[in-house]
Amino acid sequence: MARPLHCPMTSALNIPDLIRKKRDGEAHTRAELEQLVLGYTRGDVPDYQVSAWLMAVYLRGMTAGETADLTLVMADSGDQMDLGDLPRTVDKHSTGGVGDKTSLILTPMLAALGLTVAKMSGRGLAHTGGTIDKLESFSGWSPDLPEDRFLAQASEIGLALIGQTRDLAPADGKLYALRDVTATVDCLPLIASSIMSKKLASGAHTVVLDVKVGAGAFMRTLEDGRGLARAMVDIGTRAGRQVRAVLTDMDTPLGHMAGNSLEVQEALSTLRGEGPEDLTELCVALAVEALAAHGEDPAEAEARARATLTDGSALAKFRAFVKAQGGDAALVDYPERLDVAPGRSDVVAPASGFVERLDALAVGRAVLVLGGGRERQGEAIDHGVGVEVLKKPGEAVGAGEPVLRLYHRDGRGLEAARALLEEGLAVTDRAPEPQPLILDRVN
Amino acid sequence: MARPLHCPMTSALNIPDLIRKKRDGEAHTRAELEQLVLGYTRGDVPDYQVSAWLMAVYLRGMTAGETADLTLVMADSGDQMDLGDLPRTVDKHSTGGVGDKTSLILTPMLAALGLTVAKMSGRGLAHTGGTIDKLESFSGWSPDLPEDRFLAQASEIGLALIGQTRDLAPADGKLYALRDVTATVDCLPLIASSIMSKKLASGAHTVVLDVKVGAGAFMRTLEDGRGLARAMVDIGTRAGRQVRAVLTDMDTPLGHMAGNSLEVQEALSTLRGEGPEDLTELCVALAVEALAAHGEDPAEAEARARATLTDGSALAKFRAFVKAQGGDAALVDYPERLDVAPGRSDVVAPASGFVERLDALAVGRAVLVLGGGRERQGEAIDHGVGVEVLKKPGEAVGAGEPVLRLYHRDGRGLEAARALLEEGLAVTDRAPEPQPLILDRVN
Repeated sequence: MARPLHCPMTSALNIPDLIRKKRDGEAHTRAELEQLVLGYTRGDVPDYQVSAWLMAVYLRGMTAGETADLTLVMADSGDQMDLGDLPRTVDKHSTGGVGDKTSLILTPMLAALGLTVAKMSGRGLAHTGGTIDKLESFSGWSPDLPEDRFLAQASEIGLALIGQTRDLAPADGKLYALRDVTATVDCLPLIASSIMSKKLASGAHTVVLDVKVGAGAFMRTLEDGRGLARAMVDIGTRAGRQVRAVLTDMDTPLGHMAGNSLEVQEALSTLRGEGPEDLTELCVALAVEALAAHGEDPAEAEARARATLTDGSALAKFRAFVKAQGGDAALVDYPERLDVAPGRSDVVAPASGFVERLDALAVGRAVLVLGGGRERQGEAIDHGVGVEVLKKPGEAVGAGEPVLRLYHRDGRGLEAARALLEEGLAVTDRAPEPQPLILDRVN
Repeated sequence: MARPLHCPMTSALNIPDLIRKKRDGEAHTRAELEQLVLGYTRGDVPDYQVSAWLMAVYLRGMTAGETADLTLVMADSGDQMDLGDLPRTVDKHSTGGVGDKTSLILTPMLAALGLTVAKMSGRGLAHTGGTIDKLESFSGWSPDLPEDRFLAQASEIGLALIGQTRDLAPADGKLYALRDVTATVDCLPLIASSIMSKKLASGAHTVVLDVKVGAGAFMRTLEDGRGLARAMVDIGTRAGRQVRAVLTDMDTPLGHMAGNSLEVQEALSTLRGEGPEDLTELCVALAVEALAAHGEDPAEAEARARATLTDGSALAKFRAFVKAQGGDAALVDYPERLDVAPGRSDVVAPASGFVERLDALAVGRAVLVLGGGRERQGEAIDHGVGVEVLKKPGEAVGAGEPVLRLYHRDGRGLEAARALLEEGLAVTDRAPEPQPLILDRVN
C-alpha cells in the first residue's frame, strides 16, 4: 500500500510539522508555541496532537529560552492580575509537601514587614495539603473575594488570599489535565512553566519559591530540585521579575503537625514565637529572600523578620486577615477551640534507639486515609483529623514510646493510616547525622 | 499549589502506567499491547492517550518481540481472511514507489507458475500509485467482489484481487490515521507492524516484500530499508509465515512509464516479454523469492519464471483475471485503445552529457499535479495522464534532446509538472557508475 511521504513543499508549519520539530529535538520559536498552546486553549488544536507534542517535549526537553517563551505564552492565555498600584508586591509558591503550613506564617510576616501579599492559593490534592483548606478551619473564612475587594484588602492589611480562578493562565489548566492522563507530568520544563505561568499572570513583582526535595516531594533528589529551581528563576528573570528559590528537605514532615486544624494550631504557635525550630527557620529564610529581592540587606532583614514573630506584629496581621475574609478571629486567640477530631491512637517505637526515618509521604497518605485530604478535586475533607510527629528524625526514643499520634474521627481509616505510618517509621541504634532543612538557594 | 505524586500503591496497570512504561524505555507484554490497541479500537481508550504512547514508541522504539506482538494484536483486531483451501498461497507488498507496476506483472506470473494469489490491494496516495487505480484503466474492472466469488476466482484462475476492506485489521486503520496527524508515521516498528498486520490478516502462507529505497521511497537509505525488511521478515517468522524481502532502488522510476494507463501499457509489454530490463528483472526476482519460499530450487525457479513472460502463460492469466472481474479484456490485446491523454510536452536535456539524476519523487509529484494521483483518499483521478522517461540515468543525451515526455489533458497542471521535472533532472559530462536495481535480499 502506498504511504504518503512528508514532502518539503509547504512553507507554513502545520501542527504535525510542529510536533515533528520537537520530536526531532529542535527548539520552537515563540510564534510556534503560541500556535500550539493558544490554539489548544481556544479548541482549534485537538488534544491528540497536543499529547503527542507533550510526550515529545518530555523525551526531548526544552531549552531555557523555549521554557521561558512557553511560560509567557501560557501566562498570556487569559486574564492577568494587575497589582500595579500595590507597593512591594510579593508572591510565594511551594512545590508541595507534608505538614507545610509555611504560607500561613510567612504571608502575615511579609505583611508586617511592609510588603504586600495579594495571592492566589490552592487546595490540597493526594498527600499534599493546600493553604485554602487550612484557612477554612476558621469557620466563616472564604477564599471567594471579588477583585476590587481583594485589591482593597491587600492595600489595607498587606495580605489578601483568594482561590485559583479559571481566568488566569487557562492554558495551564488545560495542559495540566492532559499531562495528568498521558504520563507527561514529571517533566522539568513543563512543571516550571506550569508553576511560573500562574505566578506571572498573578502579577507580583517578587516571587519566593520553596522547592521541596525528598521522599514526600515531587522532586526526589537535590539535583532534580536544583534543576527545577534554576528553570523557574530563569523564567522569572527573562520575564522581568525577581524570583528567588530556597531548596528544602521534605524527607520528613515540616514541623510536628499534619492535618488542617492541627497545622493551623502549629502556625498560630509559630506566629507567637513558640513554633518548632525547622518551621520557624524556614519562614524566616523565605522572608529574608523576599526582603533581599526588594533590595534589603540580608542580615538586617533576618533580624526584622524574626522580630515579627516575637513582637506580635505578624499575628496581628494574620488576625486582621482572617477577620477581613469572614473568618472567626476569636479562633486566632483561642486555637484550642479549633475543631480537632477527638480520637487518639499512637504509633510507638519498635525498639530503643533513634528515629532514623519518618517518611513524609507515609504521613501525608495517613492524613489522606483518615479523611483529611482528597484523591480528586472537589471532594469534601475532614479538617479535624491528622497526625502529630512526637519525635522527629534524630531524636532518641525508648522501646514502646509513642513516636506518632493519630487524630481520628470514630476510627475512620485508622487501621490503614497506622499501617502506613508503621511502614514509614524506622528506628536505628546509632544516632543519625543531623540533616539540614535548607539544602540550597538559587537566585 | 500541590501536585499529585505517582504513588506506587496500585498494582493493576492503567493506561497512564502503560504510557509511562514505554516513555521510560521498557518493553510491553502482549497483554499490555492488547489493553492499549484493542481498547483504542473499541473506543475505550481515548486518542489523546494513544497519541502520547505512539510518540513514546517513536522515540523509545520497540523490541523485535514487542513489534511481533503488536502486529499479532492488530491482525487479531478484526476479521481474518481464511485462505485455508487454496493451494500455495502467496501475497506481495511494495512499500510504495513511482512507476511501480510490478504487481500487474508479478501476480499473473505467479498464477502461471502454479501459485495462488488471493490478494488485497490499495489505491495510490500522494506521489505513489496503487494497483487498484491502475487496474481501473480497464473499463468495467472492479475490485469489489463478495468473498465467495473472490475465493472461487482465486481457486479457478490462481489470481483474484480486491480492495482494502475495513474488517481486516481495523486497529491498523485507526492507528494509522492517528499517526498521520501526530508526526509518528515514519517509525520502523509502527511501519512494520502496520504492513504486516494486514498481511497476516489476509491469510497467505508466503509474503514477498519489495522494500523500496531512495529519493522516491519512504525509506531513504539502504540501512533504513534493511531495518524495515528485517523487522517484517522477523514478524512473519514469529507468526509462522514465510516472508522474504527484496530491497530495490527507488531513486528513479521503475521502467519508463508513470501514470495509470501508461503503466498498464508497459505492464502488458512486459507480460509479452518486451518490457524494460529493470522491470522484467524485478518481477523475475520477486517470483523466484515466492517459489523459493515454497521450496523450489532458485535456479530452476528463475528459468520457469522467465518462461512465463515469453510463452504467453502470464499474459493469459492476466487476460482471464481482467475478464473475471468485469474488465474489457480486449484492451489486454489492444493496449493502444487504453485512454491516454492526448497532450504532449517534452522536457529536454539542458546540455550534452549523461543523465545523472532523474528523481522518482519529482516524477511522482508531476503525475500528481497533472491529475493522475490524489492528495487525499477518495479523490477522483485521471487515468490517462502521466510521464514517460525517455532516457534513464546513465544514458547519453545531446543538448536539447527530449529526456522526459508529459502526457497531459488540456494543459492541466502542465507548468507545475514541468517545473518539478526540470528540478528533478540533472545531466553530467561524465558517465555515472551504473546503479544496481536489486540492492539486497532479506529472508
